[in-house]
Amino acid sequence: MKKLFGVIGLGRFGGSICKELSKEGKEVLALDADEDKVNEYKEIATHAVIADSTDELALKELGFRNIDHVIVAIGDNVHASILTTLILKEFGVKRITVKAQNDYHEKVLQKIGADEIVHPERDMGKRIAHSIISSNVLDYLELSDEYSVVEIKAGEKMQNKTLMELDIRAKFGCNVVAIKHGKDINVSPMANEQIHFDDILIIIGADKDISRFEKELVVDDD
Amino acid sequence: MKKLFGVIGLGRFGGSICKELSKEGKEVLALDADEDKVNEYKEIATHAVIADSTDELALKELGFRNIDHVIVAIGDNVHASILTTLILKEFGVKRITVKAQNDYHEKVLQKIGADEIVHPERDMGKRIAHSIISSNVLDYLELSDEYSVVEIKAGEKMQNKTLMELDIRAKFGCNVVAIKHGKDINVSPMANEQIHFDDILIIIGADKDISRFEKELVVDDD
Ligand SMILES: Nc1ncnc2c1ncn2[C@@H]1O[C@H](COP(=O)(O)OP(=O)(O)OP(=O)(O)O)[C@@H](O)[C@H]1O
Ligand SMILES: Nc1ncnc2c1ncn2[C@@H]1O[C@H](COP(=O)(O)OP(=O)(O)OP(=O)(O)O)[C@@H](O)[C@H]1O
Ligand SMILES: [Ca+2]
Ligand SMILES: [Ca+2]
Ligand SMILES: [Ca+2]
Ligand SMILES: [Ca+2]
Repeated sequence: MKKLFGVIGLGRFGGSICKELSKEGKEVLALDADEDKVNEYKEIATHAVIADSTDELALKELGFRNIDHVIVAIGDNVHASILTTLILKEFGVKRITVKAQNDYHEKVLQKIGADEIVHPERDMGKRIAHSIISSNVLDYLELSDEYSVVEIKAGEKMQNKTLMELDIRAKFGCNVVAIKHGKDINVSPMANEQIHFDDILIIIGADKDISRFEKELVVDDD
Repeated sequence: MKKLFGVIGLGRFGGSICKELSKEGKEVLALDADEDKVNEYKEIATHAVIADSTDELALKELGFRNIDHVIVAIGDNVHASILTTLILKEFGVKRITVKAQNDYHEKVLQKIGADEIVHPERDMGKRIAHSIISSNVLDYLELSDEYSVVEIKAGEKMQNKTLMELDIRAKFGCNVVAIKHGKDINVSPMANEQIHFDDILIIIGADKDISRFEKELVVDDD
């Protein structure tokens, strides 16, 4: 049987999830108390309905019991978010993902059994702060507290040098796993590969090693 | 001279940026119209002030002319966000990053010269939708429209096989650049490295190749 998704709250976050799931061909029931929001998603989601998600009876009649995975994306009204999650738990919904407003909200959600709790604004704030601080790091993927993959602008100091000459692995303990040159990406760079000024290197390693590499070989405008 | 940052709007997004910049030792002037928000950031930012950012005189007196990089993180009030950005542009602020509410807002911000426009909720909604759809992909970094780095659960089919036996590069054209085993991360995996059931592979390649790899070697619970 096809997996059913529910999205409660069609703000920017919930709306974006609803769009992506629908785009990937998933069956989505979208719900918001606001008529305008619901109209916006009528053509996007499988079904879009106006309802107050704290109304247990309404959720029951809409068939939320049979939905496999519900995303609760209510923001400012912490009380409504908690109550909605409680109702879904009582229905026996298998997986519930909830957007949290603050630490207190997160704690309550944990206690009542939300499966995943997300902080989209906080996490994105962190990402953007990092890219602001180090204007050479364009984006990154945190692998653990200590390891990351980063996209970093090559800059002047590496210009026209080969990977062998730079000897990044021996000197800094991190690996260049790909090189972006305009629209081309080379995911198997060779030792004799030459770096250009506006290339972007994709590097994997310990954060402290990547920092050392950045300080030594990449110019920062800070 | 030390670079000065300004954060206007201390909601979840602006607040998170303010915290991260401050944690990294940056000089931050934080501003919000709401007294409670400002009090929350009094001990975190270098300065935190109560003001309406659409009040040009107030911004001038607070010294916003001399701030190198301002982040405008006002959400729902699109008009206030646009007006604030206009004032900062007129002051000659070197770099202005603005959070956009929707496409219309983005267009106007572009026209008036915002340097960076961000959509934190939309972008994070996309990321989370992806991780919901493919429960084996834990996180990812988009390198371009066609290439990514993904964190993927190994699962049963790869269990106890070596990288050489799996021959991922030849079969799928993508590279395993690291293997996570509990808290250990090996960023230089050897050909004779054996994969365990609950290992996490970090793979780089074209999205279509990663998808093929996923379909063939990773079990999905969809
Ligand atoms: N009890 C409820 N039942 C149904 N929908 C609700 C309920 N409470 C709030 N919503 C809807 O949830 C959506 C998101 O709420 P709100 O705008 O407060 O959150 P936000 O976190 O600021 O959103 P964003 O995702 O844009 O950051 C709104 O469209 C709102 O109408
Ligand atoms: N003209 C203004 N001057 C100063 N601060 C303002 C102004 N307008 C809004 N703010 C502040 O900006 C902050 C963010 O606004 P709002 O909560 O509407 O945005 P949001 O996008 O829902 O926030 P979040 O980052 O939590 O998702 C609030 O703390 C609000 O007080
Ligand atoms: Ca809001
Ligand atoms: Ca928000
Ligand atoms: Ca991660
Ligand atoms: Ca990117």
